[in-house]
Amino acid sequence: MDGDGASSTGATPSEEMNGTGNLMDFLDEPFPDVGTYEDFHTIDWLREKSRDTDRHRKITTKSKESYWELIKSLLDAWSGWVVMLLIGMLTGTLAGVIDLAVDWMTDLKEGVCLSALYYSREQCCWTSNETTFEDRDKCPQWQKWAELMTGHSEGAGAYVLNYFLYVLWALLFSFLAVSLVRVFAPYACGSGIPEIKTILSGFIIRGYLGKWTLLIKTVTLVLAVSSGLSLGKEGPLVHVACCCGNLFCSLFSKYSKNEGKRREVLSAAAAAGVSVAFGAPIGGVLFSLEEVSYYFPLKTLWRSFFAALVAAFTLRAINPFGNSRLVLFYVEYHTPWYMAELVPFILLGVFGGLWGALFIRGNIAWCRRRKTTLLGKYPVLEVIVITGITAVLAFPNPYTRRSTSELISELFNDCGALESSQLCDYVNNPNMSRPVDDIPDRPAGPGVYSALWQLALALIFKIVITIFTFGMKIPSGLFIPSMAVGAIAGRIVGIAVEQMAYHHHDWIIFKNWCRPGADCVTPGLYAMVGAAACLGGVTRMTVSLVVIMFELTGGLEYIVPLMAAAVTSKWVADAFGKEGIYESHIQLNGYPYLDVRDEFTHRTLATDVMRPRRSEPPLAVLTQDSTTVEDVETLIKDTDYNGFPVVVSRESERLIGFVQRRELTVAIKTARQKQDGVVSSSVVYFTEDNPQVAEACDPQPLKLRRILNLSPFTVTDHTPMETVVDIFRKLGLRQCLVTRSGRLLGIITKKDVLRHMAQMMNQDPESIMFN
Amino acid sequence: MDGDGASSTGATPSEEMNGTGNLMDFLDEPFPDVGTYEDFHTIDWLREKSRDTDRHRKITTKSKESYWELIKSLLDAWSGWVVMLLIGMLTGTLAGVIDLAVDWMTDLKEGVCLSALYYSREQCCWTSNETTFEDRDKCPQWQKWAELMTGHSEGAGAYVLNYFLYVLWALLFSFLAVSLVRVFAPYACGSGIPEIKTILSGFIIRGYLGKWTLLIKTVTLVLAVSSGLSLGKEGPLVHVACCCGNLFCSLFSKYSKNEGKRREVLSAAAAAGVSVAFGAPIGGVLFSLEEVSYYFPLKTLWRSFFAALVAAFTLRAINPFGNSRLVLFYVEYHTPWYMAELVPFILLGVFGGLWGALFIRGNIAWCRRRKTTLLGKYPVLEVIVITGITAVLAFPNPYTRRSTSELISELFNDCGALESSQLCDYVNNPNMSRPVDDIPDRPAGPGVYSALWQLALALIFKIVITIFTFGMKIPSGLFIPSMAVGAIAGRIVGIAVEQMAYHHHDWIIFKNWCRPGADCVTPGLYAMVGAAACLGGVTRMTVSLVVIMFELTGGLEYIVPLMAAAVTSKWVADAFGKEGIYESHIQLNGYPYLDVRDEFTHRTLATDVMRPRRSEPPLAVLTQDSTTVEDVETLIKDTDYNGFPVVVSRESERLIGFVQRRELTVAIKTARQKQDGVVSSSVVYFTEDNPQVAEACDPQPLKLRRILNLSPFTVTDHTPMETVVDIFRKLGLRQCLVTRSGRLLGIITKKDVLRHMAQMMNQDPESIMFN
Repeated sequence: MDGDGASSTGATPSEEMNGTGNLMDFLDEPFPDVGTYEDFHTIDWLREKSRDTDRHRKITTKSKESYWELIKSLLDAWSGWVVMLLIGMLTGTLAGVIDLAVDWMTDLKEGVCLSALYYSREQCCWTSNETTFEDRDKCPQWQKWAELMTGHSEGAGAYVLNYFLYVLWALLFSFLAVSLVRVFAPYACGSGIPEIKTILSGFIIRGYLGKWTLLIKTVTLVLAVSSGLSLGKEGPLVHVACCCGNLFCSLFSKYSKNEGKRREVLSAAAAAGVSVAFGAPIGGVLFSLEEVSYYFPLKTLWRSFFAALVAAFTLRAINPFGNSRLVLFYVEYHTPWYMAELVPFILLGVFGGLWGALFIRGNIAWCRRRKTTLLGKYPVLEVIVITGITAVLAFPNPYTRRSTSELISELFNDCGALESSQLCDYVNNPNMSRPVDDIPDRPAGPGVYSALWQLALALIFKIVITIFTFGMKIPSGLFIPSMAVGAIAGRIVGIAVEQMAYHHHDWIIFKNWCRPGADCVTPGLYAMVGAAACLGGVTRMTVSLVVIMFELTGGLEYIVPLMAAAVTSKWVADAFGKEGIYESHIQLNGYPYLDVRDEFTHRTLATDVMRPRRSEPPLAVLTQDSTTVEDVETLIKDTDYNGFPVVVSRESERLIGFVQRRELTVAIKTARQKQDGVVSSSVVYFTEDNPQVAEACDPQPLKLRRILNLSPFTVTDHTPMETVVDIFRKLGLRQCLVTRSGRLLGIITKKDVLRHMAQMMNQDPESIMFN
Repeated sequence: MDGDGASSTGATPSEEMNGTGNLMDFLDEPFPDVGTYEDFHTIDWLREKSRDTDRHRKITTKSKESYWELIKSLLDAWSGWVVMLLIGMLTGTLAGVIDLAVDWMTDLKEGVCLSALYYSREQCCWTSNETTFEDRDKCPQWQKWAELMTGHSEGAGAYVLNYFLYVLWALLFSFLAVSLVRVFAPYACGSGIPEIKTILSGFIIRGYLGKWTLLIKTVTLVLAVSSGLSLGKEGPLVHVACCCGNLFCSLFSKYSKNEGKRREVLSAAAAAGVSVAFGAPIGGVLFSLEEVSYYFPLKTLWRSFFAALVAAFTLRAINPFGNSRLVLFYVEYHTPWYMAELVPFILLGVFGGLWGALFIRGNIAWCRRRKTTLLGKYPVLEVIVITGITAVLAFPNPYTRRSTSELISELFNDCGALESSQLCDYVNNPNMSRPVDDIPDRPAGPGVYSALWQLALALIFKIVITIFTFGMKIPSGLFIPSMAVGAIAGRIVGIAVEQMAYHHHDWIIFKNWCRPGADCVTPGLYAMVGAAACLGGVTRMTVSLVVIMFELTGGLEYIVPLMAAAVTSKWVADAFGKEGIYESHIQLNGYPYLDVRDEFTHRTLATDVMRPRRSEPPLAVLTQDSTTVEDVETLIKDTDYNGFPVVVSRESERLIGFVQRRELTVAIKTARQKQDGVVSSSVVYFTEDNPQVAEACDPQPLKLRRILNLSPFTVTDHTPMETVVDIFRKLGLRQCLVTRSGRLLGIITKKDVLRHMAQMMNQDPESIMFN
């Protein structure tokens, strides 16, 4: 705190005579380190905000002095937008580089491009001269490893060799990834979203968003995704974007020195991260708003949007997919959906909800086991084993061998006339003369049936392996694996409905909308709805999810199916447990996160939660004019509280303010070094008036009113906890003092609130349902 | 407040002996009217929330008793979604009906359909048998008034007759509209958005969202739009949607009895209103979030989205535009935009900002004049005069004669090969053999040049007349007029750039991207960018505006031009004054609205703002055990405060709680009537212990601890006002007590905060710029 004005009037001659002039001079300089927080501590939002206002006020006042100051103040006002621009550009660039690298390295597991080693298979074959689709499928420049090494591309030997090399590359990539994470940046593992949620809510984790984490996470993300593990790059991209945000914050003291302002920038960076992950800027902003952010003022909304747009356009300029599309899975469907189809869509929603609940339970159980048993001691081995299993099981099935995003892309796609995929092996009517994009429903050919079997196996494989993969010590997102599970299930259901509709036009459910020869059912749409449902079940986001999907398809047409599936899946999953995967991981790791969505509806009062409890020793307090320096030092040594309330006297216990531990420590240390006459028996004064030094032999008093927060937050002991929770949430408090008629009774910290909420939740789990 | 548990244990026999049993019985019943607010008062959000939690808790407890109660509790949990469904359906239906009626009545000013009187011109001509475009333009079923009455469709006489009837119909419609508003529902006038913002922030305006307002606003909206005045239906549709929301709230006691919960529903209803106004559900939700709402928890986000979707699909089912499009102005452009075009786009943004600033200044000045001079006494005359002027000036110009939304639609459209509009009168290259939707830039023909002149006149006309129209005593939105101004300006700029690019390929600015024979410039896109800029300048919304525009065009392609224009326009307009039109009207009307966007950055403390000031008499307080009933009644009579702090005694002034005026009045009145022995000299007790009746002859004491709020919100006198403003905003407080070490010093109400903010703003207007 910057003082209250009353005691900062400078030294008068009479004071100098008393020897306190020294003190006043010293107090006019800010203490070093004051205003920063320790690692793993919670910030005080109100304090950060008021510090920013002070800074702002200073600049505004100065700006009237000269043109140079005016320009500086304008630059300061614009720095927010500059930071957004930089974040957007760097995030977009990194996303583009990651996309290109992943493409290349994923293909490297199977073969290499002879014309240019750094080409991915797609780039290699598109640049070749064969122009027909048939020829391009077996383009000569692209050689599988077996072909390159032995000259034979067919046969059991070649298959085994390819298989072996596929597994080997996968193991190599994942070993590199986990080693880099272990050695250089332990924080680079996981998806990062739970931690970012916690950081945005006001927690300090030093280094979590550091330069080193940024570098290692970018590199290992590429390795992890390329290794073919069942994980995605979307969550980690949010982490990468936030690291970029943190990096650029350090350029401007406005952001680097204020933890509250810094979090505004990070919220916007999260939006930019999702924006480039899916090519969905609006969805990114809503994701940041709905899922990640804690404090999201309107100004941040505008800036997030700007950052998300810049990032998306930077990515488009890099054009990693080679089709100048912004979105990851661009699809266009040509037929509308019908009311009756809502039934399978809602069933997919139920499936998504069940998958979400199963995944969260299984994954949390496994992660808990990792935390508590020997398993956690061998992270490298764990990654190697899981990669081995994944690669060995994935290679034989064409739907798991390729990268997961390619798989999703194929599942989302409608079968056009030119599609050569096995999934589109329908029996064509030879007399067909319709335009290319409006093909009627056809009977499925043998390819479709064998694809169905492979997809079913892939589904089981993905469900099981994803539970074990998420949470390992490598960067791992779960958007893509969740979407893959949903897309596979959806496509299977879609094909089933399509074939039913084709073979049974006369059934009453199809009669009204599906005439023979019409294109009634789009299996790709079912895949998309299933993907939305599964992602919704795992993350519990609804609006941003629907908007992301809407941006992918680019039409309002399919918003109702998506919404129906997303909401059903949320409801079903909520019935098994209120928390999404991110909240569950936050709980598992014990981060002090106060969820805005949990409603607290119990009848407890502040007095039930505050410390000290009845059996505990009284609260550690300072008095305004009777504590000595030694007493204070003992108190600081014996306790580990963040701060101490200051009262009038131990008898009356009337509260006058609150002093931070950190500032107290620094102030006493500095006074001892620099200020003459301050010894252990000096009395510490927090009063406004100058202390009367009774006798000449008394030691110099130490005046510390400047570091006293005169407006600590108080509630009465009768305040319902519901209100207290609301106050903590909305104002972002660190602690709150409890009084009755001005007498200090106790203190409630954020951790007390969280502990109490967890207690009440376990006591009465049924009440959750009705929130 | 519902008591604190300690004193609600019911009457014990010993108390009954004392005669207080009666009192306790009575106190167990809720007071009538307790918990409702008076008209033009502010609600207490924290209190509403805690009341809802109590209700919730009761239902949860009951639900364990029987299956019937369980079902009831589930119904209660689902009632939120049911309300959303109903709101969506009714809003969509009303919007559809309004659209159809406006179409018909707008055309009625010019002529009538002979085959069916209730057909609009478009419906009339599309159902005719002539199938070519040429024939349909002069379809025989549709007859202008002159033709119908005199048999001549051409000539000066017919023109004059048509002119006269056009003006006459316009006057008739607007007279009907203003009379209905005057007689039946004075609240139905204006756009309603400023009032809805104020209501959502926690203000009570009884009847503003009533059934009567709903009915009259719907009818008069049709009349006002049809009269051809320069106003739109979008703002009023938000008001209509909120009226629907309020209507359905009354079906469920959960919402009708809790002003806080009711406002959650109204926020969602506002989203539904914008959703049907533009056919943009996501934009509607963001509009509600960005522009209208005050308290917008995530649950409301999901529900708003649901309501907006239902409304949009209901509207689509009614299909008033006859093209099964959801959106008001559906456009599809075929060419991308180029970097160099950002210059004219940003210029349009500057124009939009200037227009916004000019409009707000002019309109507010005119409205102030209306409030303070004789002008306000003759609202009917004012409407008639403005309608007369509008109609007389509008008829000769084809671009102002038609309805404004048709005009915007035409301006947004790209000129296809088949377009017959004057704006598309380009000189065609006879050798042209390109596909229809990719026409190269062509030289403008004479039609385009005459259209440009007419558009320029229309622009001036719209700019001037809109300033005088908005704020009259009829329903009037300003989305459409603002967009029209921007669209006209944008189209003019677009054509200018297009012709420059055509005639001067070799200029350095065009050289890089515009080869001869290419389709470089899309004037329709300029119109759209201009519309966004002007709307942004007037309302200062950015994200929701861009999203609405994005939903209209349905492509991410044009988001950068729109964003550039919207942000420029906001910045330019902000330089002339921070408030948008809605905030300006809120200020003009003196509503107690605490804007979340105004940042308070002054150094004042709570002690500077609290009352009583130094010169004023001391605060009106009650003591916990020494005030008599008569004292209290005198206090209530002499003051008009909303409530009174209760202190231990006048000497120590230590705060113990706060009691609401309304509850105090009711409690004393009821006690006087029902409770024996309570007379004027009875002492009112707020203490926890039973009062000791000293002598037998003393009057019965009146125990009122139950109505005492034991957890009033307090801050210390040293709290920075910045923090106080934040607390008021985020917690939605009505008042806050100021203490120092537990001693009550004063009180700060929401109005004090607003007054102080206005004061500081005027004192130091320069500081606004840097926010």
